[in-house]
Amino acid sequence: MNAIQEMLKAHPHPAVMGRGVDMGLLSQTASELFDCAQACTACADACVGEDQVQNLKRCIRMCMDCADICVATGRLVSRETESDMRMMRSQLQACAAACGICAEECERHASRHEHCRICGESCRRCEQACNKLAGAITM
Amino acid sequence: MNAIQEMLKAHPHPAVMGRGVDMGLLSQTASELFDCAQACTACADACVGEDQVQNLKRCIRMCMDCADICVATGRLVSRETESDMRMMRSQLQACAAACGICAEECERHASRHEHCRICGESCRRCEQACNKLAGAITM
Amino acid sequence: MNAIQEMLKAHPHPAVMGRGVDMGLLSQTASELFDCAQACTACADACVGEDQVQNLKRCIRMCMDCADICVATGRLVSRETESDMRMMRSQLQACAAACGICAEECERHASRHEHCRICGESCRRCEQACNKLAGAITM
Amino acid sequence: MNAIQEMLKAHPHPAVMGRGVDMGLLSQTASELFDCAQACTACADACVGEDQVQNLKRCIRMCMDCADICVATGRLVSRETESDMRMMRSQLQACAAACGICAEECERHASRHEHCRICGESCRRCEQACNKLAGAITM
Repeated sequence: MNAIQEMLKAHPHPAVMGRGVDMGLLSQTASELFDCAQACTACADACVGEDQVQNLKRCIRMCMDCADICVATGRLVSRETESDMRMMRSQLQACAAACGICAEECERHASRHEHCRICGESCRRCEQACNKLAGAITM
Repeated sequence: MNAIQEMLKAHPHPAVMGRGVDMGLLSQTASELFDCAQACTACADACVGEDQVQNLKRCIRMCMDCADICVATGRLVSRETESDMRMMRSQLQACAAACGICAEECERHASRHEHCRICGESCRRCEQACNKLAGAITM
Repeated sequence: MNAIQEMLKAHPHPAVMGRGVDMGLLSQTASELFDCAQACTACADACVGEDQVQNLKRCIRMCMDCADICVATGRLVSRETESDMRMMRSQLQACAAACGICAEECERHASRHEHCRICGESCRRCEQACNKLAGAITM
Repeated sequence: MNAIQEMLKAHPHPAVMGRGVDMGLLSQTASELFDCAQACTACADACVGEDQVQNLKRCIRMCMDCADICVATGRLVSRETESDMRMMRSQLQACAAACGICAEECERHASRHEHCRICGESCRRCEQACNKLAGAITM
């Protein structure tokens, strides 16, 4: 059991978001969200540092937006007191959309830029986790 | 013309998000989003400071989540380079949902707590701006 | 009295950070911090959109960092429950430093890029407010 | 080599912050900062969920502030393009101070609340990493 899982389990009233949501899914999604926030922040910055920055403008923009959305969504998913399932679900869906769009852009540069390859993979994992958690929420 | 409007106009390629999106709507939404982020941050904190904090747990949670979502959305709306309309729209919709849910909760305590009244009003203005901007985006 | 001032006044135990800190200074600093977060976010993005992005790499980086620091500091200053004066002061000082460094960089491009001019001015106002509030805190 | 380390190494001009700063220290600090942001976000929320929330007001406040500061600092440390050593160092020092103050508060409740114990430990690790990185920066 990792730190995030331990933390979410230590809540006085651990979240039950529906039959399909166990602690494992919740903590894995939180973990992917913070990892993706870090990767997108670093990838936007690495793209700015590239000589071919002119060709990476869309990648920089998608990574900056995706990082902000992942930070916000990661914080929501880290909370378990009086969760609102509608808010949680719509934010998870928006985040999955952002991660998918950012991944698509990063993948276009993956063969040329290692940071885009790593970031694209992180976005894909995060997209999947968000979609899975959003789908598991019952209202 | 206020600072946010000036700033958005100073972009080398000012955003055109569709026929219905003018600079006024864009800058007003950015402004409401940062105001709402501030109001929700302050309201969550003021609720924690109340003697009746036990009755304000859901209000604290909604305000914390809504603040995080507004910060992220406010940053997206402040950017105009290579905007992705799908990402923008789904995030604006998730933010409008969050603001509406948070407003509903704050309004329940508005007669007793001035900070909830002010925050509820800020959330409603932000909800409307986000919905209007999301609706104006053409893809 | 503006919204932020109203909000900070509505706290059950309005902050008294020391003899030199009145509500006006507190709310003005909060206001400058959120404005500067917006300006820096928009300026980083506008720089990425410029044809001469190659010459603006340091400006992009300073604006991205300064935006993040202003968001965090703006949220601290918006809270009044059980404030820790040491934490408040060191963060305000780090934020003033960041704003000063970012302003210096933006000012170098102010004659060529209107967004850098506006952002530099916002950073200077924020730097001053943070320094003034940090100086007014007594421990 | 973990994802953060890979990411920081993939930058076109990997950061050299001074003789004492190797990639290991940089990526470990970034990792601790995002972990601490998650832990503090979750601990503030878990405290709100406790029946004895009245006794945890200062813990909630310290965790909310510390989470915001760790998010901002984690994003700074994730960037390597045109880093400003003065900005980096003052923010790392402010973050170390915040983590130390938050840890002290969490430790007071560690025997009663598992989430405070876990969060306190995360804050201590983050405090140490920030201090070490700040100390290694040469200007």
